[in-house]
Amino acid sequence: METLTKSIRVLRVGQRYVRDDRTLTHLCLVSRALGAEAIHIGDVEKDILATLGGVNRTWGGDFRAILGEPWRKVIREAKEERRAVVHLTMYGMPLQDVVGELRKLDKLLIVVGGPKVPGKVYHEADYNVAVTSQPHSEIAALAIVLHEIQGGEELKRSFGKSRLKILPSARGKRVVEP
Amino acid sequence: METLTKSIRVLRVGQRYVRDDRTLTHLCLVSRALGAEAIHIGDVEKDILATLGGVNRTWGGDFRAILGEPWRKVIREAKEERRAVVHLTMYGMPLQDVVGELRKLDKLLIVVGGPKVPGKVYHEADYNVAVTSQPHSEIAALAIVLHEIQGGEELKRSFGKSRLKILPSARGKRVVEP
Repeated sequence: METLTKSIRVLRVGQRYVRDDRTLTHLCLVSRALGAEAIHIGDVEKDILATLGGVNRTWGGDFRAILGEPWRKVIREAKEERRAVVHLTMYGMPLQDVVGELRKLDKLLIVVGGPKVPGKVYHEADYNVAVTSQPHSEIAALAIVLHEIQGGEELKRSFGKSRLKILPSARGKRVVEP
Repeated sequence: METLTKSIRVLRVGQRYVRDDRTLTHLCLVSRALGAEAIHIGDVEKDILATLGGVNRTWGGDFRAILGEPWRKVIREAKEERRAVVHLTMYGMPLQDVVGELRKLDKLLIVVGGPKVPGKVYHEADYNVAVTSQPHSEIAALAIVLHEIQGGEELKRSFGKSRLKILPSARGKRVVEP
């Protein structure tokens, strides 16, 4: 498998109290598809591990979801290993103003949250970054930030050995077993 | 309000049979925040109109959700008005290979679906476009495509008159009533 040129991890904080499995699944799959190596997802149902294991086996790569760590610990350990903490929030600085700095970083922890993000996250973060100052979607914000930080290189990445592989097609679906 | 330089509409097809309101809400808000003028959402609960009306009143703009039109009609009318139909699918041509062409278009209908998209959509589309050939999220794919087609200009857009406005901040939350 092609080596990733940056080490990017994702941390999800501030889950809603109602279970929100679909949003979590989107966040995990987007992190995997767009060049992150792992996502920290706190205390959630373990079904997600089986889902991601299946996706890796079918489509390649070794993306990991890490359960059961408090967000404070994940952020503290990121700081210890000089991993920049980038918190996505509509209240932050415009992405286009900070993306030049972010591109220079080799190790990042991207924090995605929601309405329930504790104030401490804003203060612990090295960067609070807004993908527009409009309300939309943490899934969309994560996707655009991963894309911008890697300058689009993540779109070209190979996932190495896999059970299935798509051959891009102008019409229809072409899938092969390599 | 600042005028959008392109006319971009979004069409959602292939809803799952189980209600999937949260994904739909994400798709609507991403379309609105990232420069589309409207989204066609077929037959869904009308709650979403109230949600979007509230977002427009609070945060500006005149983004619209359009209900009750069959997808065939939306695509046919797009073709009649020479609006390019861009279908997002992991089976399509890599975004990075077609983005140059897409940027030249002034009127687009971006079709987002899911596993239940009818085969006819692949054949009716002018472009079938993949944001990676990996499984992830229609919300993320839509975000990256809107961002790339507009070359990042959508991030700088003002939403004009609004009840609340965020002042970008390196730490914390600053919201004003303009």
